[in-house]
Amino acid sequence: MSLIRIYDIISKKREGGALTKEEIEFAVQGYTSGRIPDFQMAALLMAICIKGMTDEETANLTMSMANSGDIIDLSQISGIKVDKHSTGGVGDKTTLIVTPIVASCGVNVAKLSGRALGHTGGTIDKLESITGYRTDIPQAEFLRLVQDIGVSVIGQSASIAPADKKIYSLRDQTATVESIPLIASSIMSKKIASGADAIVLDVKTGSGAFMKEIDDAIMLAKKMVAIGDNVGRKTVALVTDMNIPLGNAIGTSLEVIESAEILQGRGDDRLRELCTAISSNMLHLAGKGSIVECERMVEDSINNGSAFEKLCRMAHAQGGDDGLIRNTDKFPKAQIIYPLKAHKSGYITDMDTQRIGISALLLGAGRQSMEEQIDFSAGIMLSCRTGDYVECGDVLATLHTNSEDRLKKAKEVYLGAIEFSDEKPIERDIILKRIGG
Amino acid sequence: MSLIRIYDIISKKREGGALTKEEIEFAVQGYTSGRIPDFQMAALLMAICIKGMTDEETANLTMSMANSGDIIDLSQISGIKVDKHSTGGVGDKTTLIVTPIVASCGVNVAKLSGRALGHTGGTIDKLESITGYRTDIPQAEFLRLVQDIGVSVIGQSASIAPADKKIYSLRDQTATVESIPLIASSIMSKKIASGADAIVLDVKTGSGAFMKEIDDAIMLAKKMVAIGDNVGRKTVALVTDMNIPLGNAIGTSLEVIESAEILQGRGDDRLRELCTAISSNMLHLAGKGSIVECERMVEDSINNGSAFEKLCRMAHAQGGDDGLIRNTDKFPKAQIIYPLKAHKSGYITDMDTQRIGISALLLGAGRQSMEEQIDFSAGIMLSCRTGDYVECGDVLATLHTNSEDRLKKAKEVYLGAIEFSDEKPIERDIILKRIGG
Repeated sequence: MSLIRIYDIISKKREGGALTKEEIEFAVQGYTSGRIPDFQMAALLMAICIKGMTDEETANLTMSMANSGDIIDLSQISGIKVDKHSTGGVGDKTTLIVTPIVASCGVNVAKLSGRALGHTGGTIDKLESITGYRTDIPQAEFLRLVQDIGVSVIGQSASIAPADKKIYSLRDQTATVESIPLIASSIMSKKIASGADAIVLDVKTGSGAFMKEIDDAIMLAKKMVAIGDNVGRKTVALVTDMNIPLGNAIGTSLEVIESAEILQGRGDDRLRELCTAISSNMLHLAGKGSIVECERMVEDSINNGSAFEKLCRMAHAQGGDDGLIRNTDKFPKAQIIYPLKAHKSGYITDMDTQRIGISALLLGAGRQSMEEQIDFSAGIMLSCRTGDYVECGDVLATLHTNSEDRLKKAKEVYLGAIEFSDEKPIERDIILKRIGG
Repeated sequence: MSLIRIYDIISKKREGGALTKEEIEFAVQGYTSGRIPDFQMAALLMAICIKGMTDEETANLTMSMANSGDIIDLSQISGIKVDKHSTGGVGDKTTLIVTPIVASCGVNVAKLSGRALGHTGGTIDKLESITGYRTDIPQAEFLRLVQDIGVSVIGQSASIAPADKKIYSLRDQTATVESIPLIASSIMSKKIASGADAIVLDVKTGSGAFMKEIDDAIMLAKKMVAIGDNVGRKTVALVTDMNIPLGNAIGTSLEVIESAEILQGRGDDRLRELCTAISSNMLHLAGKGSIVECERMVEDSINNGSAFEKLCRMAHAQGGDDGLIRNTDKFPKAQIIYPLKAHKSGYITDMDTQRIGISALLLGAGRQSMEEQIDFSAGIMLSCRTGDYVECGDVLATLHTNSEDRLKKAKEVYLGAIEFSDEKPIERDIILKRIGG
């Protein structure tokens, strides 16, 4: 047996060498247990950040991090377990829509989701805006719910991939976040620890996404699909546009309301198109047929009301008031609902979607640190988006909040995010590329 | 005033950007004071290691580290103060020889030196092998000695460049030692904090040096000369061969004895050539004339005995028994003086000089950690070196030690360091290149 030393591992990566499975395991285990100090891991992460990692290294890193904590055993749930993940955007309520769709098409979905942070929202906060909805359900009950209802969405526990959590926190302080292999392995480790057999990834690109450039998004998508291939989890990645908020609603209860609309066959076309794509790819990976066949199943599940009914049943089963979903007018409203008007006329040529996300955050719909409380009634309803012609005085968006002070700041940020011009911009597709599968 | 953040500094260097003077000062000061944690500095050092630093950045880093502690004020000593530094080798006793030479030629030398570590020796240990020699002299007395005698060599205090000390210790644990700008700024910061107006550098290359490859040694030499140019300290670097131990003696008192020989016009030609070059370059930088003129002064100082007398006076002034230097037979001898014989005949084509240094260390002449004691009588006297023809049974070297156990280990290591062949190898010059000045 040869002696592995962290110093040698750091040196090797500094020189651009590929680390072995044993070396990666040594570094991840050592760091998670505290044997390897922060400063050595920081040096290694910076070397990885600059020198990169092969697909094999990235797969090994993913599995080391996945194996650092609990691996959720979904074997008692029948069928292929398909998970989905979005890299985060503004107005992204797809989990609320696709999980009941897929479940209503006969594929069980056991999903762990996260919370809002910064300009992006979180599924768990949105679900908690449904009065009574419990997201901290113990694992045994979670599995039982999936067996009974076909779907359950709960919060991610701290025992999932603790190595990833510790490494991410260090990356966040050492400017080593922006590394495709590190981002890819971080995401995939959590999906694998959550018990996924197959994974559909929504990799967002544009002004509201972490990947501002499409080439970076494609690279990340390819890297994650390669990890999936390497570790035996069928993976499909959709690279999708985040230069415009997704759908009309940004917020928590506002997004639940929009999700209910989509599940009832109404609402925004781009949002529906994306949800159909994610759902049909999930069904396809679960072995339910070709993509085209699965798309038809998705449409049927919406048209016959079974997908909507599934959302209501899931909410009810987890303690939530499904009456709110059946009659969304009952959701508590913000005290201030302010129509934000355009100061000039012209085509909207660009929306800085990250700024729009921050505007929603300022209204109370998000949080800057994990300690902050979210105002469930706060948020933004879009009236106009990129490509629309707007007359001066037209309502651009409606801002929902419970504080005049918040409104004032959010208004300014929102207006600063919108660009006008005399020329109509070219339209952007929502789905830009499909990778893997 | 713009806000400087360590995160942004790390990001900038990760992307290969050049840091400003303010950013470097912020990082060095912040780390030395403890405001910036190890892990952030480790990430920055790895980014520097991989992405490099411009000459301007390296000069700014040097000055930030020099200014992090005491700067020795040599202004009360007349003339241009020239320091010298060797990057470390085996049998390198040049400081013992060149400082009295330069002083005897009328240029004051106030020198701080270091201790042995690993395969390399240290001037301070060698001086301490002269019974009574004090190396921990307070600054005021040190300056008075230089004024009285013209030369003093003492140990480096902890207050010199503490930032360098802290950063070096972190580099040593994070595999970020091997970076030309970091090595160059580390060396130069200490020289500048020691009060040098001008600096002669001996950058060693070969099997006994830290820089195994001549190209790396030249790069390091150029980088240090560039720092000198940038910060207003005239700097000359000699790139010199360390594929053979320097001179015949390796040890502490054994090296003092050889130094006394050289100062009396005897001893090894290569060692004398190097000492003449370093001394004459020091005199040249001090404004004593052309290199050729200075070489003649050096020869005169040896021939007329003034350089040897200066060493004796320095030793005496610092409490040392100069009788030992005047009659080196009086130095205590090791109990075991073992003639190591060749097992075969042929030309010596190569000496792994680092291994020879380790052999001397094993005999007791060095230390593996700063806590270990040195055996002043231990060491090696070379009889043959690369290029010599050796008959089986000829004495290769004489090993001096006080332990049979040490002898046994050291013998093996020494023999393993020597390569034989039927063909005479080409001779290597001691001085390979002169840069700067």
